[in-house]
Amino acid sequence: MKTVEKLNMTMLCDFYELTMGNGYFETGYQNRITYFDVFFRDVPDKGGFAICAGLDQLIDYIQNLHFSEEDIAYLRGRNMFSEGFLDYLRNFKFTGDIWAAPEGTPIFPREPIVTVRAPAIQAQIIETFTLLTVNHQSLIATKANRICRAAKGRTVLEFGSRRAQGADGAITGARAAYIGGCSGTACTISDQLYGVPAGGTMAHAWVQMFDSQLEAFKTYCRIYPDNATLLVDTYNTLKSGVPDAIRAFNEVLKPLGITKCGIRLDSGDIAYLTREARKMLDEAGWTECKISASNALDEYIIQDLLQQGACVDMFGVGERMITARSEPVFGGVYKLAAVEDEAGHVVPKIKVSENVGKITNPHFKKTYRIFDNATGKAEADYIAVYDEVVDESQPLELFDPEATWKRKTYTNFTAKPLQVQVFKGGELVYQQPTLQEIQTYCREQVDALWDEVKRFENPHNYYVDLSQKLWDIKQNLLREKK
Amino acid sequence: MKTVEKLNMTMLCDFYELTMGNGYFETGYQNRITYFDVFFRDVPDKGGFAICAGLDQLIDYIQNLHFSEEDIAYLRGRNMFSEGFLDYLRNFKFTGDIWAAPEGTPIFPREPIVTVRAPAIQAQIIETFTLLTVNHQSLIATKANRICRAAKGRTVLEFGSRRAQGADGAITGARAAYIGGCSGTACTISDQLYGVPAGGTMAHAWVQMFDSQLEAFKTYCRIYPDNATLLVDTYNTLKSGVPDAIRAFNEVLKPLGITKCGIRLDSGDIAYLTREARKMLDEAGWTECKISASNALDEYIIQDLLQQGACVDMFGVGERMITARSEPVFGGVYKLAAVEDEAGHVVPKIKVSENVGKITNPHFKKTYRIFDNATGKAEADYIAVYDEVVDESQPLELFDPEATWKRKTYTNFTAKPLQVQVFKGGELVYQQPTLQEIQTYCREQVDALWDEVKRFENPHNYYVDLSQKLWDIKQNLLREKK
Repeated sequence: MKTVEKLNMTMLCDFYELTMGNGYFETGYQNRITYFDVFFRDVPDKGGFAICAGLDQLIDYIQNLHFSEEDIAYLRGRNMFSEGFLDYLRNFKFTGDIWAAPEGTPIFPREPIVTVRAPAIQAQIIETFTLLTVNHQSLIATKANRICRAAKGRTVLEFGSRRAQGADGAITGARAAYIGGCSGTACTISDQLYGVPAGGTMAHAWVQMFDSQLEAFKTYCRIYPDNATLLVDTYNTLKSGVPDAIRAFNEVLKPLGITKCGIRLDSGDIAYLTREARKMLDEAGWTECKISASNALDEYIIQDLLQQGACVDMFGVGERMITARSEPVFGGVYKLAAVEDEAGHVVPKIKVSENVGKITNPHFKKTYRIFDNATGKAEADYIAVYDEVVDESQPLELFDPEATWKRKTYTNFTAKPLQVQVFKGGELVYQQPTLQEIQTYCREQVDALWDEVKRFENPHNYYVDLSQKLWDIKQNLLREKK
Repeated sequence: MKTVEKLNMTMLCDFYELTMGNGYFETGYQNRITYFDVFFRDVPDKGGFAICAGLDQLIDYIQNLHFSEEDIAYLRGRNMFSEGFLDYLRNFKFTGDIWAAPEGTPIFPREPIVTVRAPAIQAQIIETFTLLTVNHQSLIATKANRICRAAKGRTVLEFGSRRAQGADGAITGARAAYIGGCSGTACTISDQLYGVPAGGTMAHAWVQMFDSQLEAFKTYCRIYPDNATLLVDTYNTLKSGVPDAIRAFNEVLKPLGITKCGIRLDSGDIAYLTREARKMLDEAGWTECKISASNALDEYIIQDLLQQGACVDMFGVGERMITARSEPVFGGVYKLAAVEDEAGHVVPKIKVSENVGKITNPHFKKTYRIFDNATGKAEADYIAVYDEVVDESQPLELFDPEATWKRKTYTNFTAKPLQVQVFKGGELVYQQPTLQEIQTYCREQVDALWDEVKRFENPHNYYVDLSQKLWDIKQNLLREKK
């Protein structure tokens, strides 16, 4: 793998994190221990769940956190920061704890995805990048997962680099798409950096470069006999594209005994054209020729194409996946949940708001996913206070935090913590899985959800409940702050 | 400015650019001169025009293009590329010409924004990054320009880093937003790298950290008396937020003789709350206190808020600008327009398609913007063959390329080339303006458009016409390829 020439991202912070940091420093609050949660409020595309991703890049970022002399000089030039604070930044490193849901985990609104416990300034300065990486990659992994599920086992490739929102959008976007279920990408550097399998054959320009389409196809087959996927829509797919492809296969591949090959369509009526192309290929004996289709695809169009009997083996999905076009924002937020007082007691904090949806769940929390032992299915998530213990040998009664009379009791269940510890006292304590392991884990965890949670239209509302203790604490804080 | 630790982006290419490159090499086409155009087909949000941006990053990329030994080793490991080609890549550098519309220029569908003239392999390998940077930054500059126009002269700040699609989405996104008209950003590193003014004061966490909101506000005013903008919606905006802010201003700023300060709202009914807050501030004598508002804003909501009499001096716009949420894809494409034959003649090339909208304008072209000398307004764009000359002393008749009977004759006009030459024989020949100059240029050029082109609903369709010569060539090619 490529040695990553890392751009130090420490200065990719919102300026207010520095003004607050300086403020904490000046007030003597810099060592006050704070707890921040990353959580989100709504699943994109009105889906039933999201897929979390981006932790690997968060780990890289935390490990590389430092302010260079150049950074200090820039900040000094702003004439807002004390020399004491600038000195503090010169020796800045992350010394806190981080817990996170492993990449590939299905996640639900209002539960903590990442929890940071750190001195106030540290916890504040990492806010923007933490959100950015988790928001971005969770967005793309979630969208890719939807698209791959719509393809029902057919190969989906990520083709969107050229329309991505910036270089990193393309590079880590392809990584997130792979976590969500894509088989590969067109983005070469994502293969080199992260091992996302990269592939691709030709653009229209290749066909246009030659005096004839047939010559372009034959030349390509001669150079790449084992990987000949020909783009057949430069001029006219059925009149000349597919016939020329068949001639090229016959003239170049057949004498070599090669039966595997492919064609790709990037325009026109995919349902009709692929059915016709399939017939033409089969009649010519090229039954093993795979058909790829691209052109502004997403989960809805793929579902529709398959219902119309489109003969597609492989979908190339571009802009609508790499930008999550239908809902391009993953709204993760980073909110203070607790502080430690001088005696080390955890004091819960809440943020109230005119928008009820913006009220936070206070406290240092621990979330469990409740799996039914008989079916293996995930039934609900249960958010407790950090020091509560779930006794799996006893029935567990959960209730809806908005409608507390809605209650359900679980027996014969396993309560699996949603988060794992990633950093402890600033040190990485998490064994990072490979990207392929993450993809496999994601598939298994999505399989553990009921189909009702997975459907696109009106999915079942998965339960995310609070423990009685946490619910009581929240109600008390709400009463106090009114 | 910060020394940019650049990640070499050469490998941020679609894999097919490498397979085609190797193919051209093996076929002896590597030195064949090709012409590629970047153009787009539809203005996002059904707007009347877009703003182009991203050229600066394209220039950086071109100047840093090279394959490292690590890159070569990765490619060799794919077992698809000849050693001859790998050797060629080892010495790869861009030796071609590039013309581009300057950043900040209003641009219209189907006209060439960037034109590349280079040997086939070179032109092909730069496809992805060229599109990516132009697509991304044009997308954000266009959206920012819409939002700033909706704000009618009020300050608009870019606040979206945390929701950006990747680090680069935040960093160069803030740059593009500035080009489109924003006054600044929350993203510190964008200031350091590009000089986009960064600012920011406090998050809800600051207020929560203290025993009381009033103490939090007073502490902040003491530390930053010249820059005290207080976030008033952590608990209850009108009941405690604004009253506590006024008390803090009275107790800390007033004795210092300071009259400039601010409050910020990030939730609730902005129209109502800002009107009430304005009254409370004015009654308390804080008439110079500025009111900032944020919370899922875009051009439509801003327009609506102002119509309702919201008292907002400064809008902080986050996710809906940094991801261009309503339409997060800028669909620029990169298409072969011509090749040179052995004698150096330019041979036009066309791409036909079942989708009529995907048919290209062939040939090496030169585009002119026709300004009326009497009004200074831009009237139409005129795409000609590269060797045609527009004689400003003669009437110029333009016609609609789809409905050729629609004709209009211009007299007393100036024909200004849309593109400038950026690279010549691989050398940068373009004097890059500063970011602030680009912003000013953008504002002037948008001012030169008629209001009818600028409105959000059903804008006037600005004319982009072909010269008679180019139109004839296109028709002939279409007939040939059918």
